[in-house]
Amino acid sequence: MAEETGLVVCTTCRLPGADPAAPRDGARLSAALSAHGVAHLQQECLSACANGCAVVLRGPGRWTYVQGGLDPDLHLEDLIGMIRAYAAAPDGVVPWRTRPEVIRKNTIARIPPMEA
Amino acid sequence: MAEETGLVVCTTCRLPGADPAAPRDGARLSAALSAHGVAHLQQECLSACANGCAVVLRGPGRWTYVQGGLDPDLHLEDLIGMIRAYAAAPDGVVPWRTRPEVIRKNTIARIPPMEA
Repeated sequence: MAEETGLVVCTTCRLPGADPAAPRDGARLSAALSAHGVAHLQQECLSACANGCAVVLRGPGRWTYVQGGLDPDLHLEDLIGMIRAYAAAPDGVVPWRTRPEVIRKNTIARIPPMEA
Repeated sequence: MAEETGLVVCTTCRLPGADPAAPRDGARLSAALSAHGVAHLQQECLSACANGCAVVLRGPGRWTYVQGGLDPDLHLEDLIGMIRAYAAAPDGVVPWRTRPEVIRKNTIARIPPMEA
């Protein structure tokens, strides 16, 4: 990925209690982001299956965040807002109070910059 | 970090049910790794607090793994073995069957290489 910041979306995630016969919630999330012009890398499984839908925010010199608990029907706007805030933060650290609640409550892991 | 592969160890992790007055299990894990000559970056909190002790394996061009459930008194040998296997795998993907059980059962997240 050549972008300064990158978003990875798990396309195989299911929300807790999802109908196994229904389309994958992660694939729906990816499609909804694309429909809003949000570039991202699709990934089959981020090994965060208990916490779907899951995405990763990352970029050179930035903190990486693994985020879960994202429902494409409820949290699309919050996620897009967070993606923009992340891109605007040089180190990737968005001030805690300005993070959407679904982001604050569902951080699966954070990883310091590789270059630090 | 200049190394080809990097290990990040959370020094504030506590094992589930740990005595709040006891030394942090993550700090003990870090000290035990140092005593075995295993280089690593210390990090105060990887935001994986429900799954301590947690570490991150990463490196340029490699998959990143967030691993939890590591008890410094039980899993040090398994972790060091996994660190060596990770360093020996050019893409960071250690064959599933050769991963120690504590690694197989406690992968919190995996993230594809940034350079892919």
